[in-house]
Amino acid sequence: MLSDLTLPVTLPTRSGPVTLRNASADDLDDLVSLLSDDPISAARGDVGVPEDRLRYAAALDAIVGDPANALLAATDDRGTVVATLQLTRIPGMTRRGSARLLVEAVHVSSAVRSGGIGSAVLRWVTDVAAPELGTPLVQLTSDAARTDAHRFYERLGFSGSHIGFKYRVPGLVDTD
Amino acid sequence: MLSDLTLPVTLPTRSGPVTLRNASADDLDDLVSLLSDDPISAARGDVGVPEDRLRYAAALDAIVGDPANALLAATDDRGTVVATLQLTRIPGMTRRGSARLLVEAVHVSSAVRSGGIGSAVLRWVTDVAAPELGTPLVQLTSDAARTDAHRFYERLGFSGSHIGFKYRVPGLVDTD
Repeated sequence: MLSDLTLPVTLPTRSGPVTLRNASADDLDDLVSLLSDDPISAARGDVGVPEDRLRYAAALDAIVGDPANALLAATDDRGTVVATLQLTRIPGMTRRGSARLLVEAVHVSSAVRSGGIGSAVLRWVTDVAAPELGTPLVQLTSDAARTDAHRFYERLGFSGSHIGFKYRVPGLVDTD
Repeated sequence: MLSDLTLPVTLPTRSGPVTLRNASADDLDDLVSLLSDDPISAARGDVGVPEDRLRYAAALDAIVGDPANALLAATDDRGTVVATLQLTRIPGMTRRGSARLLVEAVHVSSAVRSGGIGSAVLRWVTDVAAPELGTPLVQLTSDAARTDAHRFYERLGFSGSHIGFKYRVPGLVDTD
């Protein structure tokens, strides 16, 4: 499962080396800051207010404790968390019984964006993590408004072949 | 986890009642037939040839044995498998620490398509399964070529707000 990944790993980027490792509870505040460092995320409720801290802490615990999931943090040479992403390994029947690797919640600090960190991390996902986990398909969805991100994924060899549909369950969203 | 779902359940549809239940190894050939009953799937390699049977059997085992996943079969009143889908519960940090329910590999037999079966099954996912599993968000991707399916998901209240990107890992696809 996701513990099969060889981590930590140091990746060279244009802004210097970053170290990719499993996140832990100690990273909570840094990760929430990263997730909130973006207007589209903020519009979905991720604004990093103190009253949401317990919700995020419970979510981090759930991801770290789930063998099919990994929550990763990338740090720069001063140990600052500059990027995060979540990986989920999903067994499947289609494509002749292929497992797939789902990438969610890719966030790079706005302070270092365009420094090649996102690219280095995603390239590690496709070239190292997917082979290590035996997943012939890597997939993700990106908000249609994130046109810069779409070009970024296409440059990395992803094909925007699908429409991503989301359904918000009434009565479950925004409750505590 | 997915074993929390109240199954089997019988759903009324325009083509008569269907029973939704967890799939088992006995359903292997019926499920592979359903997955192959479609030109887009066939183009991805799902053609149901005998030499792929062991791959599908291993995938079915992996899904059934994974507490975060469920492979479902819908049967008509004669016990014929008429639809299938896979559900994956994914914990997450974004959207204030919300878990999400991923729907994959929705297939309805072409013999009964437009009979309301797909609609009844997806309505059960959004109205029953998601609340039972505590997932405020239900998400799926659909091939951009499946325009009929997109209207279908939109009628059910899904929003096609995202682009779904896929990356095929060289050297892992189409190997045994």
